[in-house]
Amino acid sequence: MSIKALSSPSPSPPSTILTQDDLKKLAAYKAVEYVSSGMVLGLGTGSTAAFVVSRIGELLKLGELKDIVGVPTSKRTQEQAASLGIPLSVLDDNPSIDLAIDGADEVDPYLNLVKGRGGALLREKMVEAASAKFVVVVDDTKLVTGLGGSGLAMPVEVVQFCWKYNLVRLQEMFKEQGVEAKLRVEGDGKPYVTDNSNYIVDLYFKTPILDAGAAGKEISALEGVVEHGLFLDMATAVIIAGKDGVSVKSK
Amino acid sequence: MSIKALSSPSPSPPSTILTQDDLKKLAAYKAVEYVSSGMVLGLGTGSTAAFVVSRIGELLKLGELKDIVGVPTSKRTQEQAASLGIPLSVLDDNPSIDLAIDGADEVDPYLNLVKGRGGALLREKMVEAASAKFVVVVDDTKLVTGLGGSGLAMPVEVVQFCWKYNLVRLQEMFKEQGVEAKLRVEGDGKPYVTDNSNYIVDLYFKTPILDAGAAGKEISALEGVVEHGLFLDMATAVIIAGKDGVSVKSK
Repeated sequence: MSIKALSSPSPSPPSTILTQDDLKKLAAYKAVEYVSSGMVLGLGTGSTAAFVVSRIGELLKLGELKDIVGVPTSKRTQEQAASLGIPLSVLDDNPSIDLAIDGADEVDPYLNLVKGRGGALLREKMVEAASAKFVVVVDDTKLVTGLGGSGLAMPVEVVQFCWKYNLVRLQEMFKEQGVEAKLRVEGDGKPYVTDNSNYIVDLYFKTPILDAGAAGKEISALEGVVEHGLFLDMATAVIIAGKDGVSVKSK
Repeated sequence: MSIKALSSPSPSPPSTILTQDDLKKLAAYKAVEYVSSGMVLGLGTGSTAAFVVSRIGELLKLGELKDIVGVPTSKRTQEQAASLGIPLSVLDDNPSIDLAIDGADEVDPYLNLVKGRGGALLREKMVEAASAKFVVVVDDTKLVTGLGGSGLAMPVEVVQFCWKYNLVRLQEMFKEQGVEAKLRVEGDGKPYVTDNSNYIVDLYFKTPILDAGAAGKEISALEGVVEHGLFLDMATAVIIAGKDGVSVKSK
């Protein structure tokens, strides 16, 4: 694994005060440097991924990129990419993707991720697992020493049928780590429904997950669990934007 | 494992010519002998399970069974049980089930099953995995030497998103066994949609699955696969109806 500090690219020089959005944009622009003409691209979901998609649209318009096909990971991203004129496809027609770029909610020192706070974990995992390279774009607030360590949600997508039964089983599974399992709800109190008509149970860990590989397998084995937000051994590079510029960690 | 031949119970003596439905009913009645008052029961789905549900309704009405709570494995079974006055619940409220009774599409010599040709595999697996005892009811045409050996469908429930991608991946996974993967469709040619809003890819094996345990794990690991029809190490007894009467195999 190598860590490389890079001089800060456009749009903002590092001497000005950078907002969180500036940092996301910095990292997103850096990630798009991995894109070349002719590629099939997995397009992520979330605020950082939106900067990536927007930049790709810009470069296509400028003629600096050509013959790009995007495979979006959510309805939201599909709409954004379509509005920018990015030609789109699906895994059904393009099962091999050259490069996926997406944000993440947590990144550990081994480039393992928590993803899915945006609710698109299943489609993201399908597309990113089908990608030869997977570049992750984050600001440095997303770095953790162990997954679950941010104390924020680790999402599990479950079928609507008997979601409460699975919530209790998930809570029991990690009770020694003091996990709290909550059904994700919208502002109006109704359950959040994924693009695949499922619910999300968010797990809040009090301490980082001890063995993420074992945890992932155990969660997947529960009947009615469709996918979980642990993205293990998938990222090939992580681009990190911080106050001092952009750095790249790769395997 | 023990095999016990039993004298044929009602409704029909073995000397008359028994139809497939008579055999199913014979086995169903035998299975209901495992039920006692006060039990929480998992209620299966399909033509044989329907005879079970109907018999339970009858015994409740006769007062021979009392304080039964049924946990149905499909909307169809829920409707049938409700129409018979069987009190119903869900796993959310009754996470521990005393006994589940259900049919199966294939039974191998180790009591491993293929289930789900009726389309209810996910709910069946959730309910039956939560049951202390799981009694399977079949006629003897369902016995196979190895799972997949009947040449009929082994169903895999997949999310609608990029179902074709997963169909191709499933086909590739078993290509050495010459499997054919087909999307399940309705009479009108439209995809069959499960109670959980998913599709079903049916796998038709040319030869029995060599290692069902490994196959099940490999299928489950595909992103977008929600459940599969291999029910391994779950059945505690199988009741088999044949021309010569009813026999019971148990572990």
